[in-house]
Amino acid sequence: MFKENEQQPEGFSVALGEALDNLALNDAGLIPVIAQQHDTGEVLMFAWMNREAIEETLRTGRVCYYSRSRGTLWRKGESSGQVQTLRELRVDCDGDVLLARVDQTGPACHTGRRDCFYWKLDGDRATIDKTPLIDPAELYKKDTPK
Amino acid sequence: MFKENEQQPEGFSVALGEALDNLALNDAGLIPVIAQQHDTGEVLMFAWMNREAIEETLRTGRVCYYSRSRGTLWRKGESSGQVQTLRELRVDCDGDVLLARVDQTGPACHTGRRDCFYWKLDGDRATIDKTPLIDPAELYKKDTPK
Repeated sequence: MFKENEQQPEGFSVALGEALDNLALNDAGLIPVIAQQHDTGEVLMFAWMNREAIEETLRTGRVCYYSRSRGTLWRKGESSGQVQTLRELRVDCDGDVLLARVDQTGPACHTGRRDCFYWKLDGDRATIDKTPLIDPAELYKKDTPK
Repeated sequence: MFKENEQQPEGFSVALGEALDNLALNDAGLIPVIAQQHDTGEVLMFAWMNREAIEETLRTGRVCYYSRSRGTLWRKGESSGQVQTLRELRVDCDGDVLLARVDQTGPACHTGRRDCFYWKLDGDRATIDKTPLIDPAELYKKDTPK
């Protein structure tokens, strides 16, 4: 569906269900998701969704991923409080990657940094160049899920 | 290496080779790469690199991916002329995703659009909302590789 319509003009549309049916999920039923702060353009993090997570995210406007380590839906911010509000969800030309433009409360990264991309490769070194906004021990101190 | 140093302060660094040795490549020896226009913040495309592509990109300053369909290094722009100049290469907290901040000449997408994320999921529709900058037939009309 994505490939055969790639030369369609701006404004061309298909039903949402048809688009979701044609996403190229991997063998585990997952698709990669890039999360970007909608106004500043910061690339915040990279995660995965399954069909259920995509539908919940679109329905609720709160970003929900699929946690590969836990094997469950992961409502971003449910334990840290650092939620992502969806501004728009996009699909790429091949239908195999999503771009979630979001409004991120506080840090997106589990380390307490604003985003996950804090290692810069430079010359012959890899250097941390971002500081946590919040101590990660503070982020996860509540053990009752929200 | 990435996990155990996640609480190190800004300015902490390791040798580049150590960082590259510790990247979490997948079973095919590849790592996902998000390409972002360095000044506007546009998320341009999503692709893959292997160790050789990473090293070539850092050495030459011209972004080189690994093409999964062709099974070879893919020097972005080698057939289309739409090259990516590297501004910085970043690694995420888990060492399993790269963020390439680049200067993209013209369209990044093979459809002639500036970026690959031109399908917007909205309400009950998926809609194309970006127009090609260049006719893709023009992009690839030269069959002699540059």
